[in-house]
Amino acid sequence: MRYHETSLQVRFYEVDTYGVVWHGHYTGWFEVARNELTERFQMGPLQLKERNLLAPVVELSCQFKLPATVGDSLVIQTTMERTEVAKLIFHYRVLHQGDGKVLAIGSTTHVLTDLKGNLLYWVPPEVLERIEAMRKYLEV
Amino acid sequence: MRYHETSLQVRFYEVDTYGVVWHGHYTGWFEVARNELTERFQMGPLQLKERNLLAPVVELSCQFKLPATVGDSLVIQTTMERTEVAKLIFHYRVLHQGDGKVLAIGSTTHVLTDLKGNLLYWVPPEVLERIEAMRKYLEV
Amino acid sequence: MRYHETSLQVRFYEVDTYGVVWHGHYTGWFEVARNELTERFQMGPLQLKERNLLAPVVELSCQFKLPATVGDSLVIQTTMERTEVAKLIFHYRVLHQGDGKVLAIGSTTHVLTDLKGNLLYWVPPEVLERIEAMRKYLEV
Amino acid sequence: MRYHETSLQVRFYEVDTYGVVWHGHYTGWFEVARNELTERFQMGPLQLKERNLLAPVVELSCQFKLPATVGDSLVIQTTMERTEVAKLIFHYRVLHQGDGKVLAIGSTTHVLTDLKGNLLYWVPPEVLERIEAMRKYLEV
Repeated sequence: MRYHETSLQVRFYEVDTYGVVWHGHYTGWFEVARNELTERFQMGPLQLKERNLLAPVVELSCQFKLPATVGDSLVIQTTMERTEVAKLIFHYRVLHQGDGKVLAIGSTTHVLTDLKGNLLYWVPPEVLERIEAMRKYLEV
Repeated sequence: MRYHETSLQVRFYEVDTYGVVWHGHYTGWFEVARNELTERFQMGPLQLKERNLLAPVVELSCQFKLPATVGDSLVIQTTMERTEVAKLIFHYRVLHQGDGKVLAIGSTTHVLTDLKGNLLYWVPPEVLERIEAMRKYLEV
Repeated sequence: MRYHETSLQVRFYEVDTYGVVWHGHYTGWFEVARNELTERFQMGPLQLKERNLLAPVVELSCQFKLPATVGDSLVIQTTMERTEVAKLIFHYRVLHQGDGKVLAIGSTTHVLTDLKGNLLYWVPPEVLERIEAMRKYLEV
Repeated sequence: MRYHETSLQVRFYEVDTYGVVWHGHYTGWFEVARNELTERFQMGPLQLKERNLLAPVVELSCQFKLPATVGDSLVIQTTMERTEVAKLIFHYRVLHQGDGKVLAIGSTTHVLTDLKGNLLYWVPPEVLERIEAMRKYLEV
């Protein structure tokens, strides 16, 4: 298994009154990292929509280990889990770029649906191919 | 002229590392207050969209006088300016509920467009009536 | 067990390009609901800080069942779990006010630390009393 | 006069239900661009705080010309105005990286204060030097 890496810098407005990144912002970072990965394989939100597909988040979890603060340079590592059809599970690690310390780990679970939100019972072969290519890239 | 009033409580995540509300959040509050007002007159974003209309913000300004902080109870006062057709200008005042002190004043300018973003040259009479009703309510 | 209830209205800027609330905003709502509950028992973020205590989130999870959209009136139900000392676990349910449908469920885990982030080995009796009062109110 | 340039990519969560960047997010981008510029001259928020100084925003304005959407690559151009002592005025232009079209222009006005928010009547010479160096770099 390997990780796709995305670099980010903590923005001033992401830091709360205790001087650390407000925990809710990690969800946005996971999304930035996930979209960077999925877009490479034509599986980004806009690319899915062109095929009348959505991949809404149905589950989110995050563990916060160490705080991040203004100006910190971070790396978001993203990988995925091998799952049943029509379900995608991504795993994330947020690292401090300087010392490689893990600040947070998390995951999001997505389902593939049509534009009305109905779960797909049949996934188009070209979408399966892209998921397969993404898995190959991530060695999962 | 009179103001429509909207009550708000400062949320923890709206406060920055200096212990005061981050200035960018006032824009969201203006929107909450404006929508509460316009929805009363069937001119909210969703109600406009049902008529194939949009009212995008083309100009925004804000002056920050005094800081707000976590848990503060605020009042957003909203009124509008009498303008030419197809343009709406709203004015806002953010007050501390306790002592009535003015924390910020601002304004947003909106144009009426179709769903493709083309400026309306002709405003439907029922929309004009609603704008007129809103002006009457605000005494402008 | 009972829930403390907080009312919220979905803000326009919380809705994403798919017309539903962006999943990351639920974290902020959980916080609004949790702070409303904890402040009643002098255990809100500011009240803790006055006692040189923090209660950072160390774990977050959320399951998204049904979407919410602009203008929806929601109820956030909050309760807590009986846990070991120096740890607080809150559970949340997001309901549609009209029909009572559950849109999301989630939880956050917090630890009690001093202002430097060191875990408390000894919790001051008056803090224990407040936690106990909150548990009594929630019948847990 | 010249501009300092900052590159940004529109994040999915920054786009609203109309498929365009929600207008309130430009304020955050201005801040990202401004901090990148000021940090070069040891005038970023953290660097000022080390000298017991703050530079709060007292005025904000923005004109929105053309919409931006998910995945767009943008350039934020930042420059400043020559002003009286203890006041800083920054000007911004948001451009589409591909075709160079101007999407928005804006400005923020800041005052220099001590940590209690009192306006500085006397600006330390080393701060004046840094402002002067920033002006020289921006040719203003």
